[in-house]
Amino acid sequence: MSPSGPLPFDPIDEARRQWREHGWADAADGMAAVTSIVRAQQIYLSRIDSVLRPFGLTFARYEVLMLLLFSRAGSMPLNKVGSRLQVHPTSVTNAVDRLETTGLLRRVPHPTDRRTTLAEILPPGRELALRATEAVNAAVFVDPQLDGAETGQLLQILSRLRRAAGDFDTTR
Amino acid sequence: MSPSGPLPFDPIDEARRQWREHGWADAADGMAAVTSIVRAQQIYLSRIDSVLRPFGLTFARYEVLMLLLFSRAGSMPLNKVGSRLQVHPTSVTNAVDRLETTGLLRRVPHPTDRRTTLAEILPPGRELALRATEAVNAAVFVDPQLDGAETGQLLQILSRLRRAAGDFDTTR
Repeated sequence: MSPSGPLPFDPIDEARRQWREHGWADAADGMAAVTSIVRAQQIYLSRIDSVLRPFGLTFARYEVLMLLLFSRAGSMPLNKVGSRLQVHPTSVTNAVDRLETTGLLRRVPHPTDRRTTLAEILPPGRELALRATEAVNAAVFVDPQLDGAETGQLLQILSRLRRAAGDFDTTR
Repeated sequence: MSPSGPLPFDPIDEARRQWREHGWADAADGMAAVTSIVRAQQIYLSRIDSVLRPFGLTFARYEVLMLLLFSRAGSMPLNKVGSRLQVHPTSVTNAVDRLETTGLLRRVPHPTDRRTTLAEILPPGRELALRATEAVNAAVFVDPQLDGAETGQLLQILSRLRRAAGDFDTTR
């Protein structure tokens, strides 16, 4: 719910109308689509963050833990964490610092490449990642307030967008 | 483009596969949909921010300026700015502080309600908002890398979500 309760009209629809009135009709639908995505992200992230807070996690730190949990060795070079999560190296450093301080992972030298540092998930990190996932699944992911057809459409549309934005290229 | 170039696979598809393997099949599609929205927001916001930066604006400050620009009186109570943009009062205070410092708007007392402060857009604010919009439209909103049908589907799906989340209620 928005901080002060529902508005009696859709504010993004209203912005689209204003866009058209100001002579920006060719950008009105794009503005509405992008603004809707920004708002949907706020809605979901605020739910996820409130579920993760009791676990001492943010979404960024949770994503790092899950990536390590899913990795075969339980560890991964720091730069690979960044490229897999598609975030900047400083974000990875901040998240890893915090997860290391709280004993959920540790930095270890790469066995053969001296210039590379690995992040390695520790048993308390595994345990917390699994418990946090059960909580986020139950609160958000099992029912993201979309029906089945909508979830599929959304995945398809945003997959094309992410591909076009250079996130991945499965043709190489 | 992601910081380190395209991955050879879709990382959200891979996370979905892992979710299923870990026995969280009922949450796998929801996780993928929500994570796609988070990532789409990052893609768009980083584009918008880089267009707005030369204007000295962030997306949050830009949204405040546009709301005032679109208002009949060119001014609006601060709490109404928050409810219209569906952000918390502290975010509004921060954005308004910064826009006031740079001479784009000013705080004025409400003419009849002493307890209410208005944000009023100033001529340089109007001028900057219009120029910034032309730039964001050209760089992002005219072509958000979605085709027409996808834009419509996305708007419809996310409008239902925002309504379900309590953003607006047009039935009241």
